[in-house]
Amino acid sequence: MSKTTFGFLGDETLPLFTDLYELRMMQAYYNQNHNPRATFSLFVRDLPPDRGFMIAAGLEQAIHYVENVSFGDRSLEFLIEQGFDEDFLSYLADFEFSGEIRALPEGTVTFANEPLLEVTAPILQAQLFETAVINQIGYQSLVATKASRMRDVIDRRGGDQQLVDFGSRRAHGTDAGIKAARAAYIGGFDATSNVAAGEAFEIPVAGTMAHSWVQSFERERDSFETFVDEYGDESVILIDTYDTVGGAEIAGEVAETNDVDLRGVRLDSGDLPALSKAVDEVIPEVDQYISSGIDEYAIREFFDRDGVGSGFGPGTALVTSTDAPKVEGVYKLVAVEREGVMEPTMKLSTGKVTYPGAKSVRRTESDRLFDGDVVGLRDEDLPGEEQLVTVAEDGDRVLEFPSLDEIRETARRNRRKLPEKHRWIEDPEPYDVRISDGLKRETDELKRTLESRLNSSS
Amino acid sequence: MSKTTFGFLGDETLPLFTDLYELRMMQAYYNQNHNPRATFSLFVRDLPPDRGFMIAAGLEQAIHYVENVSFGDRSLEFLIEQGFDEDFLSYLADFEFSGEIRALPEGTVTFANEPLLEVTAPILQAQLFETAVINQIGYQSLVATKASRMRDVIDRRGGDQQLVDFGSRRAHGTDAGIKAARAAYIGGFDATSNVAAGEAFEIPVAGTMAHSWVQSFERERDSFETFVDEYGDESVILIDTYDTVGGAEIAGEVAETNDVDLRGVRLDSGDLPALSKAVDEVIPEVDQYISSGIDEYAIREFFDRDGVGSGFGPGTALVTSTDAPKVEGVYKLVAVEREGVMEPTMKLSTGKVTYPGAKSVRRTESDRLFDGDVVGLRDEDLPGEEQLVTVAEDGDRVLEFPSLDEIRETARRNRRKLPEKHRWIEDPEPYDVRISDGLKRETDELKRTLESRLNSSS
Repeated sequence: MSKTTFGFLGDETLPLFTDLYELRMMQAYYNQNHNPRATFSLFVRDLPPDRGFMIAAGLEQAIHYVENVSFGDRSLEFLIEQGFDEDFLSYLADFEFSGEIRALPEGTVTFANEPLLEVTAPILQAQLFETAVINQIGYQSLVATKASRMRDVIDRRGGDQQLVDFGSRRAHGTDAGIKAARAAYIGGFDATSNVAAGEAFEIPVAGTMAHSWVQSFERERDSFETFVDEYGDESVILIDTYDTVGGAEIAGEVAETNDVDLRGVRLDSGDLPALSKAVDEVIPEVDQYISSGIDEYAIREFFDRDGVGSGFGPGTALVTSTDAPKVEGVYKLVAVEREGVMEPTMKLSTGKVTYPGAKSVRRTESDRLFDGDVVGLRDEDLPGEEQLVTVAEDGDRVLEFPSLDEIRETARRNRRKLPEKHRWIEDPEPYDVRISDGLKRETDELKRTLESRLNSSS
Repeated sequence: MSKTTFGFLGDETLPLFTDLYELRMMQAYYNQNHNPRATFSLFVRDLPPDRGFMIAAGLEQAIHYVENVSFGDRSLEFLIEQGFDEDFLSYLADFEFSGEIRALPEGTVTFANEPLLEVTAPILQAQLFETAVINQIGYQSLVATKASRMRDVIDRRGGDQQLVDFGSRRAHGTDAGIKAARAAYIGGFDATSNVAAGEAFEIPVAGTMAHSWVQSFERERDSFETFVDEYGDESVILIDTYDTVGGAEIAGEVAETNDVDLRGVRLDSGDLPALSKAVDEVIPEVDQYISSGIDEYAIREFFDRDGVGSGFGPGTALVTSTDAPKVEGVYKLVAVEREGVMEPTMKLSTGKVTYPGAKSVRRTESDRLFDGDVVGLRDEDLPGEEQLVTVAEDGDRVLEFPSLDEIRETARRNRRKLPEKHRWIEDPEPYDVRISDGLKRETDELKRTLESRLNSSS
């Protein structure tokens, strides 16, 4: 394989998708014989702006890294060049995960400070995964959330429009292109335009035609005729190349002349709600698919202005989550074994304090709606239903991954159980996530201990 | 390979990184015997907000797609399932590029409406590349630009701080993680934390330690001692886990006791300019590396407030280009062969008008600074130096890709030749990009022709 391939990471260089400091710490843990059992917790400190919830996604790919990471010759050779020592590299060559993983199932509604994933293993192992698991779970959760917001606007307006991911070209790289398709499907999309994502995840694949098709013919009418000749009733005709309403007229005529029931027309520019109404006057029997600048805000406006459409094709705004393009997942050491006991640990860094210890996330319901969560200590007696499930024990996966359709259904059910005020796309009301009394007490005690230790050491 | 791998796209499924409509159009071009020679042009209609320029990047990976796309069994089987017909698939099985490519060399400063890439080939071929080339060139150009802005702020303030990409975990997927490292290096970064990117692109790899290292020991001092025992003078110590200035004191003591010249300390939270000054009082001889929320605006503030630092580690803001996370690259049909002649073509879609024809981009200089560009017709007589170079002819690559260091030097030289007012990180003055008289005339004429054709057809 060339060193500068396009899409790049096969399993061969999988283990190198990590930050150098993970490997440097691992080497030091190894050589210095400091390899206590440790618990790391992946969570976000804050929801992205204007987000009242997130949809957890990306677990399956994160676990794929954990299960398949294997340092082959190419990786080891590079690490020798980077100055790692032979002894440590022979450890890496035999690397195998032996720990425990708990996580929020994909599709679960989640909030700040709730663990998305907890890894308990010798620190040498657990350290390695940081970069990879944050990367996959962070991005897919970001996009699943964005997608879910679009589906939610449609649901709340009583619509049943199709949502098709058109974002691959504007995604940040190829992996984002295909993972966005997966995450969007989880969040309530119906299909993707990305063929590789369809192949990888069995997501329905959809596509219409581009302006280049139309322009490649001398006359728009010829381009429609030819397409209809090829695809018949399956044809979705792009009508805005020259003049949208004029294009609709021609499309209608071509359909009639050729005795074809068009699957639809696509509008991709201009004042979309207004144009869709005008097009509906011309060809009321034909479904309209709306693309260009589509996100939850545009969909809301489309409904507000009584636009006529059977489906939307969000692209850039979906796959880059443009209005909130980052979710700052962190993977923090929350407990470490000392003299045979797992002791809670935390940092005190300004604005970045973490809650110590392995956690429990409990969710209560009232009137069949989610009523509030409690984040507490793992072994604490708490009300509500536990949200974290065991994914792996003693290094073996014990959770069978649900199908993508099952995950999608989980996401739908979870979203609908969330009271509407937390689903507003602007200024949503914060959902109640309480820190348990036990966790508060543990945090305060540990903080006091650490501060007194600081004072005694200086 | 599992169908749900982590990083995913090896050459095996490379050709499927495309939108379904490309393949659907290709099948129709093929079956309908409509395969004229065509020119597609990749460009952006607008620079992202607060951007006075962009740095072109990602060409090598885009060309990798064009050169290596090959539909193997796995891809073809999936396309059969998707309803493509055998005849067309046997064409795909033998797919080979036979056309011409011109492009802006990586590292070149560029602006809206300037082609980043132009492909001239039978439309069946050229159509396929759309999704892939927009994806790679768009994202890498976005990040190279973001990186260049950070380097530029440092340059303009007379600094020589190191810039290290710490963004992999927050990148949108794995491909973004490694491509961001490449693009950041082009834009003026010195290193990346991502090991896979280091291996793939021979970028220097750097890393320090995480809070987990510190917390895994009962006392901060022990954690520093152990790290220094392992790495000696190479050690960069993270000092903000409990109390930054206290951590600096301990780091200084540990260095002294162990007779080690620390390579540096890292600050990762709090009021970074203020803390860096306080740390400098305690350990003036030790280099400080600054991370957490770093972007060009934070770097400017750091200088404004007289922060003390030898390097910055931007992460999320770099790899997601948070303040402007999208660059809307488009790949438009600009010319098509009709009766043996390449005829210009354009669409008239509201707000999305394109300039027709294959282009020339000329740049003039005055006082050794860039003075303005002209975008004109390819064969037009224009002043200034041509920026587009030939990458491939008759399907064969004729351009040898420069090394990454050469590209980085091109980017540096280009940036410095751009007058400063176009490099401001807020409200930069627009650089002068003129549409040539010939291109204006061609655009106007074609528009009139298309409009009169519209009137006659309705």
